[in-house]
Amino acid sequence: MVNYPIKKKRDNNTTYELNNKKIKDKNPIMANRGMNLEGLLNDSNEYYRANDIAIIHKKPIPIQIVKVDYPSRNKAVITEAYYKTPSTTDYNGIYKGKYIDFEAKENKNKTSFPLHNVHPHQVEHLKSIQRHGGIGFLIIYWIHTNQFFLYPIQKFAPHFDDYLGDGRKSIVYEDFLKEAYLIPEKYLPRLDFLSVLDEYLLK
Amino acid sequence: MVNYPIKKKRDNNTTYELNNKKIKDKNPIMANRGMNLEGLLNDSNEYYRANDIAIIHKKPIPIQIVKVDYPSRNKAVITEAYYKTPSTTDYNGIYKGKYIDFEAKENKNKTSFPLHNVHPHQVEHLKSIQRHGGIGFLIIYWIHTNQFFLYPIQKFAPHFDDYLGDGRKSIVYEDFLKEAYLIPEKYLPRLDFLSVLDEYLLK
Repeated sequence: MVNYPIKKKRDNNTTYELNNKKIKDKNPIMANRGMNLEGLLNDSNEYYRANDIAIIHKKPIPIQIVKVDYPSRNKAVITEAYYKTPSTTDYNGIYKGKYIDFEAKENKNKTSFPLHNVHPHQVEHLKSIQRHGGIGFLIIYWIHTNQFFLYPIQKFAPHFDDYLGDGRKSIVYEDFLKEAYLIPEKYLPRLDFLSVLDEYLLK
Repeated sequence: MVNYPIKKKRDNNTTYELNNKKIKDKNPIMANRGMNLEGLLNDSNEYYRANDIAIIHKKPIPIQIVKVDYPSRNKAVITEAYYKTPSTTDYNGIYKGKYIDFEAKENKNKTSFPLHNVHPHQVEHLKSIQRHGGIGFLIIYWIHTNQFFLYPIQKFAPHFDDYLGDGRKSIVYEDFLKEAYLIPEKYLPRLDFLSVLDEYLLK
């Protein structure tokens, strides 16, 4: 019996069994910085909640449970389950009485953001949020420039519709500079995305 | 090797392995009616979404993933995971520009609703939603009277605070009649809880 390497992912305690295959470290730059986009957002949301500024949570990962064992009366162990395609976005909540909803993505490309990273139903979801009076957007982290952008759904959607209609498959960096907003990195909160909403979207 | 009985739960395809123990059917009355509270709410939310009335989703069940296998390159099988205590509520979304947030519970008791069914952080969460300009409530189904009540958090919270301070451990049926609102059961949507918000809470 060979002992395969075990890898700990720091933000959610998941242990990956490699089964004799090497799994690429998905995000070496972020790993070095000790925090990924999800970690930064979770920290920021915790700060917002602790200071009663906004109530925003990450939704749990949708999982299809197939088998549950009950080794003892009050203990349930899930022994077979699969990741499901999410039907909505990662984060939602309330800020200044407004419903807030967004998806967070990291971009490893150097010149553009590939649109296949986003699911069509996520864009549809964000569009309907906007239609109902909420605020929908994407937070996209450019690893190579180390910039965090808030992209409002009304600016993002036309690119996505174009892509679905066999147009451009990505959004170029220049469009980010024109249509999205840079999120300031601070000490507290780490990623102050609500300050962007204050300045540009809630006026 | 004995083949243990396998039970299919109709609303989420979960298979329970009984491991030589019998698991009690949690809700025989609802099972006979072919639909439980979660099923009714999911159907109603689907109707609201399909008709662009409101965008409300059930959040995925929070699960702590411990072990993931990769039998092939693009397939991930979760082989060990546990149910986590939810940190927020089951449902949230947007209706008429308002942030909506609620928890759904079934009550098997005949004369009162036991408050240990609700987690303290869920009540705290609903209170903060209300404080931030959203609408927080509980939907509680009384199995024995076959009634669905919408209990606004501002009416529910004092009972819960009382319970945490070693007061009454439950809310009596009479208080439901005084402080909560009956949700009409219809053909479409099955549980028209938004009509209650229209009538009593959004005015």
